[in-house]
Amino acid sequence: MKRIAIDMDEVIADIVDKHLELYNRDFQDNVTLIDMHGKKLRDLRPHLIHEIQSYLAQPGFFRDLKVIEGSQEVIQELSEHYEIFITTAAMEVPSSFTAKYEWLKQHFPFLSDMNFVFCGDKSIIRADYLIDDNARHFTRFTGQGILFSAPHNMHETGYVRVNNWIEVRNYFMK
Amino acid sequence: MKRIAIDMDEVIADIVDKHLELYNRDFQDNVTLIDMHGKKLRDLRPHLIHEIQSYLAQPGFFRDLKVIEGSQEVIQELSEHYEIFITTAAMEVPSSFTAKYEWLKQHFPFLSDMNFVFCGDKSIIRADYLIDDNARHFTRFTGQGILFSAPHNMHETGYVRVNNWIEVRNYFMK
Repeated sequence: MKRIAIDMDEVIADIVDKHLELYNRDFQDNVTLIDMHGKKLRDLRPHLIHEIQSYLAQPGFFRDLKVIEGSQEVIQELSEHYEIFITTAAMEVPSSFTAKYEWLKQHFPFLSDMNFVFCGDKSIIRADYLIDDNARHFTRFTGQGILFSAPHNMHETGYVRVNNWIEVRNYFMK
Repeated sequence: MKRIAIDMDEVIADIVDKHLELYNRDFQDNVTLIDMHGKKLRDLRPHLIHEIQSYLAQPGFFRDLKVIEGSQEVIQELSEHYEIFITTAAMEVPSSFTAKYEWLKQHFPFLSDMNFVFCGDKSIIRADYLIDDNARHFTRFTGQGILFSAPHNMHETGYVRVNNWIEVRNYFMK
């Protein structure tokens, strides 16, 4: 059975939606998803980089993120044909461990927590496929990288790209 | 550069020492390391399995474990010749995440936290070597498994075995 490793943030968990909402509220700003085409929020407002990053360091930030549309249904279907691992760069935000674990248990109860991986450098992952929104993780990955579209990566080229979970389903179940 | 993945519990962090001390104190028992040859504490006192396991579920249990002798010096030396990752089955005790992370940062400050991996099923690990006290992790591991001696695994045969960190050094630096 082939193995698919799947990133969390921006692939199954909607970081940008909550991050933008909190930022706009607290700084009376009106940044939209269209403004973020090809950019991260910190690139748009570099003078507020510390404030912007600080949201992610709050222990509860990751606990109530919205689930990316279609990810639950498609991953459940894929799990009948592939071995599924969730591989998240949690070491970048160590305060996020518990919230991320609880979120996964709540929204993906059909996956075993033995298949959750909290790491930093994803070259440690042994899998046939890696679905991720950060192309940098593909550099030393030995399987097939699949770039999941997110606002910040819209200008990246040279990768297999999927725009949503319907396209993930088509890629693997064709 | 070849890559060595290293387990935490019973390889660099001394679980048994603290576990036995707390158990003997609370249950007025006198289990020794010699009694545990080839066994786990729960095998010796099966009627207390829930009480015995409950120590590990306390969030702070993993924070003040003793460092296994020689592990710091040898890993620091190995890190000049090999890529080192710490790969721990933390998903078995989700309340341990933060304590394990802080313990690693304190005792192995020369390692990058990008090289820490909290997982369950270690077949996800891509490395040339895995040093672990649980032989079950070698079954689907594609590199060379190296069994680090611990009381519970003393009867295991059929694996490359190292008894301490001096032997680890000799294996890799010969």
